[in-house]
Amino acid sequence: MEIIRKTALLQARADSVRAEGRRIALVPTMGALHPGHLSLIAEGLARADEVWVSIFVNPTQFNDPEDFEGYPRTFESDVEKVRAAGATVVFAPTPDQLYPEGAETWVEVGSLSEPLCGASRPGHFRGVTTVVSKLFLAAKPHVAVFGEKDFQQLAVIRRMARDLGFDIEIVGGATLREDDGVAMSSRNLRLGPAARSQATVLIRAIHGAERAVAAGERSAQALLEDVRKTIEEAPQASLDYAELRDPDSLAEAPPQLDGPTLLALAVHFSPDPDGQGADVRLIDNRVLLPQASPRTSTE
Amino acid sequence: MEIIRKTALLQARADSVRAEGRRIALVPTMGALHPGHLSLIAEGLARADEVWVSIFVNPTQFNDPEDFEGYPRTFESDVEKVRAAGATVVFAPTPDQLYPEGAETWVEVGSLSEPLCGASRPGHFRGVTTVVSKLFLAAKPHVAVFGEKDFQQLAVIRRMARDLGFDIEIVGGATLREDDGVAMSSRNLRLGPAARSQATVLIRAIHGAERAVAAGERSAQALLEDVRKTIEEAPQASLDYAELRDPDSLAEAPPQLDGPTLLALAVHFSPDPDGQGADVRLIDNRVLLPQASPRTSTE
Repeated sequence: MEIIRKTALLQARADSVRAEGRRIALVPTMGALHPGHLSLIAEGLARADEVWVSIFVNPTQFNDPEDFEGYPRTFESDVEKVRAAGATVVFAPTPDQLYPEGAETWVEVGSLSEPLCGASRPGHFRGVTTVVSKLFLAAKPHVAVFGEKDFQQLAVIRRMARDLGFDIEIVGGATLREDDGVAMSSRNLRLGPAARSQATVLIRAIHGAERAVAAGERSAQALLEDVRKTIEEAPQASLDYAELRDPDSLAEAPPQLDGPTLLALAVHFSPDPDGQGADVRLIDNRVLLPQASPRTSTE
Repeated sequence: MEIIRKTALLQARADSVRAEGRRIALVPTMGALHPGHLSLIAEGLARADEVWVSIFVNPTQFNDPEDFEGYPRTFESDVEKVRAAGATVVFAPTPDQLYPEGAETWVEVGSLSEPLCGASRPGHFRGVTTVVSKLFLAAKPHVAVFGEKDFQQLAVIRRMARDLGFDIEIVGGATLREDDGVAMSSRNLRLGPAARSQATVLIRAIHGAERAVAAGERSAQALLEDVRKTIEEAPQASLDYAELRDPDSLAEAPPQLDGPTLLALAVHFSPDPDGQGADVRLIDNRVLLPQASPRTSTE
């Protein structure tokens, strides 16, 4: 496996791999790799001859400088994990490779970038779509794999790729979870032990909403009230948002759910009372699937 | 020569040409081709094995709907010219190929897009950089050739290509001129005969400034005053802008020129008194090269 730091070298390698008729899958990451990332590599291996992993903590997608500074950096162990997972290239560019001096070009998606994390983190998705464009142009992949945990990010990147005409298949990889159901995330490392044990409120709130929908509940307001109550049970948690939206357009769901509906959650956790851990924001999501409910069934 | 209408077909062709180790040059145009465009094709042939010409009147770069509607469309004769000039592909996409329904992704360059034509034509360069990104992703060229007549456009596209990391060499082609010195432009076709004869004021103003600089004039104010006087000699002309700027950063030139300086002009021409012709805006430019002047020389 090779570690490449320069965009031009990666482009030359892409050209030669493509000339041999071999397919490249790219898995863009910010490092601090966990099994969720490794499952994206496996997804790439199923769809291409080579999997390349980029590791770059992208400053322009952090609206909070402390979050950027504190983001976990575990490069050596990341490289070992990537190698063991079967990737052939790690692209770990120096910042000047992606942001040359005086860089002032942005790639921006409109309405899909605005709600949810776009509202909580101004400029976040502009940073994501800009850096992902640069990574696509550097690696020239046939396929790129992103985790479904970042549901809105995946939707925004799909839209960008379609609108600009990137000749790249965008693939979503299922969210992997810890034994207690918490979605795997590099940010979990930054939670104190007490906050970490409370982080299960996200998946518990999701499961509650799923059960309510299965039992026939269609009221968006009632579903979201239950979600909020569940989050409030965790003393260190404070809700950033809990919303129900159309999974494709991300438009607000109607008051009575009438089809597949995204439940998207973002929750802040404070440091533990004894000072362990940092302020950490976690997200999770699920597409709720209301079927014809017992009440409206013709049976 | 082949006419291709679908992005996916062009991308497949690009992949197969690249796999053969052959180089592609792209010449993006909005049609209404004149010898200036054909010289860009010749420039491409000198640098690649195949030249592909795109013909697409891009709606998003027109701030004025009338200018878009009235822009000359001469597709059949364009195709003949391109064939005769040695191009092998014309990419003439239907609008939905570059702007699929719900398209909301923009590529935007910052400061370089703001002055000059960016100030006169809000949104113009955002439309240019967005469509050029799409054309680059569709044609996957090694080289792309743009006319130097659109000096700011060339600067903005160079910056975009560098910032995003497009693996494409951006080449500027020298401005071709009619016998009377008027820069070749598709918009010249829309001038009435009287306005057309007055259009020489742009190159006369440029020549005046060049002579003044050669004679030792360094005052930006004095140079621009002379330019304005020359433009005013044409009864149907009204100045949009006449500015002196740094050729790389497009920052305003100092009051006393101290190095290579862009003189950029944009002039509106009204229809002829007898009603012939349309409202037409022409641009032209020259990089002025102050040498050590006689006054400051040590001789």
